[in-house]
Amino acid sequence: MKTETIVLNEERDVTLTTYIQPVGGRFDYIEKRPAIIILPGGGYQYLSAREAEPVAYPYLNAGYHVFILRYSIGKHATWPNPLNDFDEAISLIRSKADEWNVYEDKIAVIGFSAGGHLASAAATMAKNRPNAALLGYAVTGEDVKGCNSTAPDTSKYVDRNTCPCFIFATRTDALVPIENSVNFMSALTKAKIAYESHIYAYGPHGFSTCNTAVLNPSTIISDRVPHWVDDSIGWLKDVFGDFSNNGLTKPVCPRYSTFDYDEYLSLECTIAHLFKYYGTSKQLDEVLDEIRKSGGDTSAVGKMTLGALLGFARYDKNKIEELSNELKSIKNTL
Amino acid sequence: MKTETIVLNEERDVTLTTYIQPVGGRFDYIEKRPAIIILPGGGYQYLSAREAEPVAYPYLNAGYHVFILRYSIGKHATWPNPLNDFDEAISLIRSKADEWNVYEDKIAVIGFSAGGHLASAAATMAKNRPNAALLGYAVTGEDVKGCNSTAPDTSKYVDRNTCPCFIFATRTDALVPIENSVNFMSALTKAKIAYESHIYAYGPHGFSTCNTAVLNPSTIISDRVPHWVDDSIGWLKDVFGDFSNNGLTKPVCPRYSTFDYDEYLSLECTIAHLFKYYGTSKQLDEVLDEIRKSGGDTSAVGKMTLGALLGFARYDKNKIEELSNELKSIKNTL
Amino acid sequence: MKTETIVLNEERDVTLTTYIQPVGGRFDYIEKRPAIIILPGGGYQYLSAREAEPVAYPYLNAGYHVFILRYSIGKHATWPNPLNDFDEAISLIRSKADEWNVYEDKIAVIGFSAGGHLASAAATMAKNRPNAALLGYAVTGEDVKGCNSTAPDTSKYVDRNTCPCFIFATRTDALVPIENSVNFMSALTKAKIAYESHIYAYGPHGFSTCNTAVLNPSTIISDRVPHWVDDSIGWLKDVFGDFSNNGLTKPVCPRYSTFDYDEYLSLECTIAHLFKYYGTSKQLDEVLDEIRKSGGDTSAVGKMTLGALLGFARYDKNKIEELSNELKSIKNTL
Amino acid sequence: MKTETIVLNEERDVTLTTYIQPVGGRFDYIEKRPAIIILPGGGYQYLSAREAEPVAYPYLNAGYHVFILRYSIGKHATWPNPLNDFDEAISLIRSKADEWNVYEDKIAVIGFSAGGHLASAAATMAKNRPNAALLGYAVTGEDVKGCNSTAPDTSKYVDRNTCPCFIFATRTDALVPIENSVNFMSALTKAKIAYESHIYAYGPHGFSTCNTAVLNPSTIISDRVPHWVDDSIGWLKDVFGDFSNNGLTKPVCPRYSTFDYDEYLSLECTIAHLFKYYGTSKQLDEVLDEIRKSGGDTSAVGKMTLGALLGFARYDKNKIEELSNELKSIKNTL
Repeated sequence: MKTETIVLNEERDVTLTTYIQPVGGRFDYIEKRPAIIILPGGGYQYLSAREAEPVAYPYLNAGYHVFILRYSIGKHATWPNPLNDFDEAISLIRSKADEWNVYEDKIAVIGFSAGGHLASAAATMAKNRPNAALLGYAVTGEDVKGCNSTAPDTSKYVDRNTCPCFIFATRTDALVPIENSVNFMSALTKAKIAYESHIYAYGPHGFSTCNTAVLNPSTIISDRVPHWVDDSIGWLKDVFGDFSNNGLTKPVCPRYSTFDYDEYLSLECTIAHLFKYYGTSKQLDEVLDEIRKSGGDTSAVGKMTLGALLGFARYDKNKIEELSNELKSIKNTL
Repeated sequence: MKTETIVLNEERDVTLTTYIQPVGGRFDYIEKRPAIIILPGGGYQYLSAREAEPVAYPYLNAGYHVFILRYSIGKHATWPNPLNDFDEAISLIRSKADEWNVYEDKIAVIGFSAGGHLASAAATMAKNRPNAALLGYAVTGEDVKGCNSTAPDTSKYVDRNTCPCFIFATRTDALVPIENSVNFMSALTKAKIAYESHIYAYGPHGFSTCNTAVLNPSTIISDRVPHWVDDSIGWLKDVFGDFSNNGLTKPVCPRYSTFDYDEYLSLECTIAHLFKYYGTSKQLDEVLDEIRKSGGDTSAVGKMTLGALLGFARYDKNKIEELSNELKSIKNTL
Repeated sequence: MKTETIVLNEERDVTLTTYIQPVGGRFDYIEKRPAIIILPGGGYQYLSAREAEPVAYPYLNAGYHVFILRYSIGKHATWPNPLNDFDEAISLIRSKADEWNVYEDKIAVIGFSAGGHLASAAATMAKNRPNAALLGYAVTGEDVKGCNSTAPDTSKYVDRNTCPCFIFATRTDALVPIENSVNFMSALTKAKIAYESHIYAYGPHGFSTCNTAVLNPSTIISDRVPHWVDDSIGWLKDVFGDFSNNGLTKPVCPRYSTFDYDEYLSLECTIAHLFKYYGTSKQLDEVLDEIRKSGGDTSAVGKMTLGALLGFARYDKNKIEELSNELKSIKNTL
Repeated sequence: MKTETIVLNEERDVTLTTYIQPVGGRFDYIEKRPAIIILPGGGYQYLSAREAEPVAYPYLNAGYHVFILRYSIGKHATWPNPLNDFDEAISLIRSKADEWNVYEDKIAVIGFSAGGHLASAAATMAKNRPNAALLGYAVTGEDVKGCNSTAPDTSKYVDRNTCPCFIFATRTDALVPIENSVNFMSALTKAKIAYESHIYAYGPHGFSTCNTAVLNPSTIISDRVPHWVDDSIGWLKDVFGDFSNNGLTKPVCPRYSTFDYDEYLSLECTIAHLFKYYGTSKQLDEVLDEIRKSGGDTSAVGKMTLGALLGFARYDKNKIEELSNELKSIKNTL
């Protein structure tokens, strides 16, 4: 492992510390590695040591290159300085992809509290986007004004270009209300972006990896909270793929939780989306008419996929197959 | 274990199957047991065997009495028949608390899909409420009309009287869109009810306990999904307490995720709530004035607790203690 | 689930309680199920309720048919009565394999303490052997005389016909010394029978499934002990196979931890075994001569497989392949 | 984290690489840390990179200082060079305990394969002993001659001064036969040293931390094997204590799995040990006489503790208490 601290901005005291792991040799099936950038929290006023190096270890253990970005804080925290710091860091890493053996399209960011705000900004607003974002008890709404009055409500910027997200927090967080996580999830849901989320029943703000080496064991917190660490690694494998004899495996979890963004229509599109194509195909119209008639209220099933509804209703299998073929011939332009 | 099937309503074919465990004897430290009522899914059209007995085993293993309620379906599913079935079932169990050695205030309900709809209705609308509700890929919004046009959007009924909830689902559920779970969480958040939630990255509808004995192993689903079972048992211990030499231990997770409902004010109240008491106390006013001045936008910190903000701002400890005492003397009437 | 208690021997009060799970229907990919027979402990003087039904739940959850055998105890415990009870029980189950949808060659036995003694006797001495045996803090050596003076030291009966075993115990068991488990492992090792074992650092005798529903939570015991339950289920999948679309999958863990029992020789045979064939093949002799020369002391590597040694020594790959082919042509008769 | 490579012996190319973690500051409840020394395997011919840094990460994550010792190999591996290397390394760490903030009596060693041989030698033969030893698929018997003809069978050196051990291996290891682990356990059992062991059903030699970052995912190995990592951390907490507000907590797992080594006799002594004191006390004699009479064969219960036997036999509680007091007054000199 090669560790080095690179100064990104001397005036604002911005640094990137690298933990680069070897490839080849005894690791003969590993030619490159995915990477993760850690953004410690501290209310844009300081950078918590509890959310820096201790967070690196589980991802190093999982085979990731790790980078800790110490971004602009205090008087330098005026927006968009911190976001620019992120942009510069990820650009640097991608430019060194060959030298450091990094998969340049498999770079995640993880941030905690205010660092989680910056991670959510990276996911939604950065010029150079990460490929996945992990948000720990993150400030994402207007609440961010409480610690950085110039920083934006990032939940408003969630759109189709946002990367997949992994969200974790405790329900009883007294410093960053759980609304921050819930509203961000709602925004991701609306934009049909893939995500996973774990809201644990109770525990304070700032639990980091939640083991006894970073969190005073007298802390009252659910014993399920530490699971987020292993779960996040499992999730990264789902969205990036896992090591294999032949590079990373194909991801099992696609970027979008919808087929409404695909090039052609399919049974996997939502009913609401297919209704936009009413009038395009006799076969489709027929099914949609039936749904309208029987449902009484089509909005109730609009977010279901057509395939799921037809399956549930035990619709004629031959008709389903014909319809499937028909849909695959219609270009998705809306 | 005593198993018996009790007919609750012959006409509508409603039954309650009991799995009553022994107390005392070799279980000498156990005098009573908490209980859980299982509501299988099936779109109010049938009752899935995959979501009935296989769900009983982990809770029996955890020491719970288990009841499976086969509620009104098909032509009998007209609302409020299913809810009445639940009301009758839990009333029966509570009336037999002594005979069956049940803690009558520690009765949870778990429902899947349409059964999850009924569980959410039990949690928000029943005359006889459960003490905790577990909602698995539950239909809770208007989507329920798709399978039962007479059934209500239960998320609209969430209020201060709702019991703590445990929510789990997969992000890519094509039959019951994830909005159902997310919107119900938003409603719980607003009503300040305690909850825990796990939204897994991918997997189909209807996974039940998600082991190879209920789910065909060729199913494409995240390997984190089966964790909901153990996590739900851990959560039940948090909200009900766990077995001990002296009855159940005191729950570590309170019913409300707020102190805004307590009898007296405290530092643990949210700032928004305390602003309603502006003018009541000189000491409180002083702090609130400072927040208003410095914050520029108080709404940004309104959902934080006052204690958390003062701690973060490293406010004078003596002043905090004085203010704490002052608040404890003010009755909470709003 | 159909539960029924069948009297096997009225005079000795021997019964078999069945927990038969359904197949087909909503469990459409399941045609038959493996089974497990539970033998509670109690020093051959009583049968502990803590080691009976609570043990059934995790295996029911895993999809197994479960049977609890209440064998001969007290004045009826004279050997071989208990073993005969087991023989009768497993014969009955196998004779009903079609009716109950049991895989007749996938029947495990699990026993605790004295029940573990009986399970080890079943594995080594029964006329009708189980296909796998799970031994929990089992008495297997001469110590059994302490509670049943007529019962045999089963570790002496371990041989090539013994089924695969799963062994678990706590190091500090004050009632059944850990020697019982360690010596039984040594016997299995010598006989080259497959096994898995977990000896936990500390905890008392009699922990059963080690959750708060069977073990008073004030008990001082390692928090790793409860893992034996899930681990045992994983192990059963390894030796029996797991549910699939097409019956049980092929087991990944063979019965023997050796290839010395196979029909033909191979590189996977141990070096000691191959030395018995010295003089049979020029190619083999050549390699064995080299080992003798270089090793100085061949006994040091006798239990290694030839393939592992040649791999470690980076032996010529072509020569390895030729030797492999040669060995496969030599019948294993010793 | 401060990483540095210290040359211990230039001629033999022996180095100690340090990974020292900070204390105090944001880790305000941590004043010192326990430590672990890693000994990679490689048959005393090389040092495997797969068993060096990747092993450091989980222990860094657990809050430990980590040291990797690259000991004498190849032509320098003549015994006792490697053991001297270990002695020098642990002496250096203890001498720097104040500077590096190390608990000098909480230093573990972990070794793999040949490194496991060296770790077992450290535990049994070193001048400066570690406080705990973790042995991964370790060579401990005569088999070591296969890779280092000068190295000793360490299982013969296990005695009362050996530190607690954690043993893990796979049953089907074709390179280092499982006898190595089983025989070492037998030796520890005989010497009454505390240990924990996990022998997994199947998997090859050399699995290291057994995640996809060190082990090619196409490897056929039980999915329980990776558990050894977390289990080893739990075990270290049991024997060293865990972080708390007040230094490390008191260990819950004592060094010896016996009270036969205590200063005074007690009910927790084994019956065999107490028989050595026959004739010392009338009360004790009485109980021992009863055991002799009823047991017929006292050797069968010799390894049980007296307290466990009397408890099992439901002996008179007052008599037990009297006997307990009597025993506590007898000095243990044998």
